[in-house]
Amino acid sequence: MGFEEFFPVWDQLTAAQQARMRGSLAERRIPKGTVIHNGSMHCTGLLLVQQGQLRAYILSDEGREITLYRLFDRDICLFSASCIMRSIQFDLTIAAEKDTELWVIPAELYKGIMEESAPVANYTNELMASRFSDVMWLIEQIMWKSFDKRLAAFLLEESALEETSTLKLTHETIANHLGTAREVVTRMLRYFQSEGMVKLSRGTVELTDTGKLRKMS
Amino acid sequence: MGFEEFFPVWDQLTAAQQARMRGSLAERRIPKGTVIHNGSMHCTGLLLVQQGQLRAYILSDEGREITLYRLFDRDICLFSASCIMRSIQFDLTIAAEKDTELWVIPAELYKGIMEESAPVANYTNELMASRFSDVMWLIEQIMWKSFDKRLAAFLLEESALEETSTLKLTHETIANHLGTAREVVTRMLRYFQSEGMVKLSRGTVELTDTGKLRKMS
Repeated sequence: MGFEEFFPVWDQLTAAQQARMRGSLAERRIPKGTVIHNGSMHCTGLLLVQQGQLRAYILSDEGREITLYRLFDRDICLFSASCIMRSIQFDLTIAAEKDTELWVIPAELYKGIMEESAPVANYTNELMASRFSDVMWLIEQIMWKSFDKRLAAFLLEESALEETSTLKLTHETIANHLGTAREVVTRMLRYFQSEGMVKLSRGTVELTDTGKLRKMS
Repeated sequence: MGFEEFFPVWDQLTAAQQARMRGSLAERRIPKGTVIHNGSMHCTGLLLVQQGQLRAYILSDEGREITLYRLFDRDICLFSASCIMRSIQFDLTIAAEKDTELWVIPAELYKGIMEESAPVANYTNELMASRFSDVMWLIEQIMWKSFDKRLAAFLLEESALEETSTLKLTHETIANHLGTAREVVTRMLRYFQSEGMVKLSRGTVELTDTGKLRKMS
């Protein structure tokens, strides 16, 4: 399947716009673990995921992290092209969590088409609203939900994404997803272990009672 | 000054779109303290502030609050018309913090114009990106900044907005802005008082050393 099938408003572009977009696309394979975009990069372009998994997160000055959202097959990453709108006043980091195949749409090209095309501009609006909703969900989690619930939900989500109950995750990595300190994660995982919900060993967390985890989350 | 002067892309509307918009606008005066929009209301419409101050916040199931951003003269509130985009999956509450004069643009009308007009759709994109940036700033504050700094910054901001160093604010109100418990605010304000930065009395916080507060924030 080609780009035409993946880009939802393709049929609403003019023939000239389609030609411009087709002529400037780049297809890339990104190995797992690669940082594709960060705040110091000028403007990487929009990323349309064919297959794989990306993670969008922010970093503090002290190097702490928190995951904002993830992108999967058919998702488009807008904030790796934040230069297309002057009102985007924040920096995200985007990394590949799995080997990922994607198309890069140059930011300037997309901006030009968006300015003349109501369908593309409205589609971009929906994209942004969707990421905004992810971030609002995150704020509600951080503000109103206790850490045990967030950790239980995270472990279940990871288990679903990786399709395994034995997660290869260090406590540090979990802390970086959830925006907390490693010690906090270690303490809570030990409590989960004492309750029979997980089994811990070096670099792995095995979910041993998903029913109980689900109830907690 | 009329709506034409306040709505930034007015000149980029067609004559027919201008007529439709003019014919469906409502001008309203909202007394301070009024809740203009909340999640249970279907779709209040876009609010264009002529003069005044609005506060956008979220509420937890337990009634806790946190301020997301404020809107001032010439700002437009998009999320009181969240039905214009299906990807907006969150609810805000909007209240007037000062007596406010505003125009209400019906959501369905705006949606119709946005769908056919690239300038209106792109303008809406910038609006959303701007609010998104506010919320990202808030996440960074919540995640990486200690509460003493957030409280100091809040008191200075309030003092600038109200143009006074004697703020009429209960500890409860401050807690609702910052998304924390009243007790946490009381404890920190007492510490600020012991450091000579504020003077507390019933229902008021007087800033007595803004230099020190600024240094702290």
